[in-house]
Amino acid sequence: MSPAQFEFAPLFPAGLPPAAVRWTGRVKYDFTFGNNDPDRLPLDGLITAANSVLRREGRTLATYFLSSGPQGYRPLREILVAQLKAGAGIDCTADDILITSGSLQGIELVNRTLLERGDTVIIEQECFEGSINRLLRLGVTPVGIPLDGDGIRIDLLANALDELKRNGIRPKYIYVIPTVQNPTGTILPLERRRELLRLAAAYDVPLFEDDCYSDLVWSGERPPALYAMSARGGVVYIGSFSKSIAPALRVGYVVAPWEVMSRMLAVKTDAGTGALEQMVLAEFCKTGFSSHVPMLRRSLRGKLETLKESLRRSFGAAAQFDDPKGGIFLWVTLPESVDTLKLHQCALAAGIAINPGVQWSVNKAYARNRMRLCFASPSHEEISHGVAALAEVCRREFGVPRDPESGSPRPL
Amino acid sequence: MSPAQFEFAPLFPAGLPPAAVRWTGRVKYDFTFGNNDPDRLPLDGLITAANSVLRREGRTLATYFLSSGPQGYRPLREILVAQLKAGAGIDCTADDILITSGSLQGIELVNRTLLERGDTVIIEQECFEGSINRLLRLGVTPVGIPLDGDGIRIDLLANALDELKRNGIRPKYIYVIPTVQNPTGTILPLERRRELLRLAAAYDVPLFEDDCYSDLVWSGERPPALYAMSARGGVVYIGSFSKSIAPALRVGYVVAPWEVMSRMLAVKTDAGTGALEQMVLAEFCKTGFSSHVPMLRRSLRGKLETLKESLRRSFGAAAQFDDPKGGIFLWVTLPESVDTLKLHQCALAAGIAINPGVQWSVNKAYARNRMRLCFASPSHEEISHGVAALAEVCRREFGVPRDPESGSPRPL
Repeated sequence: MSPAQFEFAPLFPAGLPPAAVRWTGRVKYDFTFGNNDPDRLPLDGLITAANSVLRREGRTLATYFLSSGPQGYRPLREILVAQLKAGAGIDCTADDILITSGSLQGIELVNRTLLERGDTVIIEQECFEGSINRLLRLGVTPVGIPLDGDGIRIDLLANALDELKRNGIRPKYIYVIPTVQNPTGTILPLERRRELLRLAAAYDVPLFEDDCYSDLVWSGERPPALYAMSARGGVVYIGSFSKSIAPALRVGYVVAPWEVMSRMLAVKTDAGTGALEQMVLAEFCKTGFSSHVPMLRRSLRGKLETLKESLRRSFGAAAQFDDPKGGIFLWVTLPESVDTLKLHQCALAAGIAINPGVQWSVNKAYARNRMRLCFASPSHEEISHGVAALAEVCRREFGVPRDPESGSPRPL
Repeated sequence: MSPAQFEFAPLFPAGLPPAAVRWTGRVKYDFTFGNNDPDRLPLDGLITAANSVLRREGRTLATYFLSSGPQGYRPLREILVAQLKAGAGIDCTADDILITSGSLQGIELVNRTLLERGDTVIIEQECFEGSINRLLRLGVTPVGIPLDGDGIRIDLLANALDELKRNGIRPKYIYVIPTVQNPTGTILPLERRRELLRLAAAYDVPLFEDDCYSDLVWSGERPPALYAMSARGGVVYIGSFSKSIAPALRVGYVVAPWEVMSRMLAVKTDAGTGALEQMVLAEFCKTGFSSHVPMLRRSLRGKLETLKESLRRSFGAAAQFDDPKGGIFLWVTLPESVDTLKLHQCALAAGIAINPGVQWSVNKAYARNRMRLCFASPSHEEISHGVAALAEVCRREFGVPRDPESGSPRPL
């Protein structure tokens, strides 16, 4: 008789997140998770880059941090200095940049350096799920500020800051995604950026600027980053190559003053971010980034058009959305009778994955009938078929959409 | 007049680690940090692997987790199944393996899943600095068990378990590096492994087995892993490619029962470990691992001989050490008058880096005159010159070694 199995469960600390379920493969129609367009991955360029950088300096892989120290592969940081100047208008040096394992690690490090249980921060009401979750796990209260078609509402932010101050609360930061907001796809105009910086200065609260999607603005033109516009330096900035090159390459970055950088370095105890990925990215970006990104944008915009057309065809007036200014996702409002969390569950059973609104907002009532659809990864055909199949599930569960032509259910 | 700079310091939470100092480049003679031998890096093999795997399936980089799900690139896990069977005697499937960003992330995930502030764990008295530090940062008490030439002292472990039990304390785990212990280089013999498993079972405490160096046993033969020997499954196992292939590739792994795996997955919120590194490693290891590792071992053993010879020449009887059974480090005892923390500081100023013993032990008095020297990265010439220069610093600061020939200081 074999002895009883060891039981780990009694050892788990209180508050441990629930067990993950076993992964069972990707669903057929996947509108989640910020995956990119496989056909637009610059594969030849990455292969050439891998060959060239490995032949030249591959032996440095025998050394933790290569020859660059804990802030990451120096040539990649130097490329970022130029890219950040050209794109976001940021003046910085390689010493102001920390390469991270995706921008998620950037968020972790900023949170670890600034937050503790019981703190309050301000965020956009609709906001990246991963940022909301991290705050809740830390026991930090996120105060959500509503958005409109131009991003965060400055008047409501002013009210919130004022009310918090009257209650003796100094928020630890104001977290914003000002350039292609996630999930709404808005861009904060220049004048609102100025007002945001003025308010932050007036209330002595730093800004945490998440600029992960800013390479994917359709027009290729964007307002300067808050980091670039700040006269007093109270901004921490993060970015990523996940959206512009490939998400499975886990490479992001933080730009921050040394006062914060030196603390983040002290808590970044991972012995470095993957060096091969940094080397290949740097080598590719030297010559390939500026021509790749416009091609990617055009491709993504084409998929967005397919998604919008598919929604119009399959959902008719039941699906409302603004035109995002760039990015990889569309924020969709369905009739109030639709609970997108339930829709998400039913859709999954039919092989369709969506992001239910309540996961992307701190206002659960507002987000209940909203959803985020990512359009970069599925093909045009998958987008069209997937949206039609989603409409079918929605019709079955909630009675909407009716046939947009006749007002009665239509065959797919 | 420019406005005053924003001050972040008042926002830092209590207990934040002190600021890092700016990196100023590698020292001339670096005997720290587990770097590998750049001349033994299998560069041609890695380049061939990168080409081949990227051409075949590079477009999957557009998808988080590739097509493999959150436990990591499936072909790499399948290779590990075979490697772990052949080397450590472990019977497992790809579903029992989680690929991590270095084994450090493995340690973080295990700790996150099992520990909370106020807990107690048992470790080897001399132990990997990164493991000790993580415990202390978590507010967990590590109880250190002395080692001898055959690894952890089972009699003293039994005493400690007994005393803890009498005090009503159930340790959360027993953490051991049984195969090429860090820093002592011992291998726990089969019989002690049996006794360790018996004790762990008797006290109902799980084992946390860190097997990072086990590919580097000089003889190429090793006892089976505790994971393999455990009849009741109370073992979590971690390993790494950092020591066998390249440390800057941040790829490690955890083998654990689903009860623990499912909890680790829930707290591994990094959107995946770097995929390019996993893909290139898997492709290389398919054909290259089994011929590469013996070559690496021979090279490392040659460098160990150079280190021992250099120590005998420059330190004479002042440097005492046992012959490690494998690995990349030597644990050296200096005369009691030598404080290796001070030696470390003075040596750094002279361009020599060593690991002072107190950082690698929970018994500060015992470790005060001990040090860890890593020998994989410096060349034979650097080892020889570096040890001579270290002896010179030590002689200047502590009056030892005297000239091993004449009893008086000797010129270098």
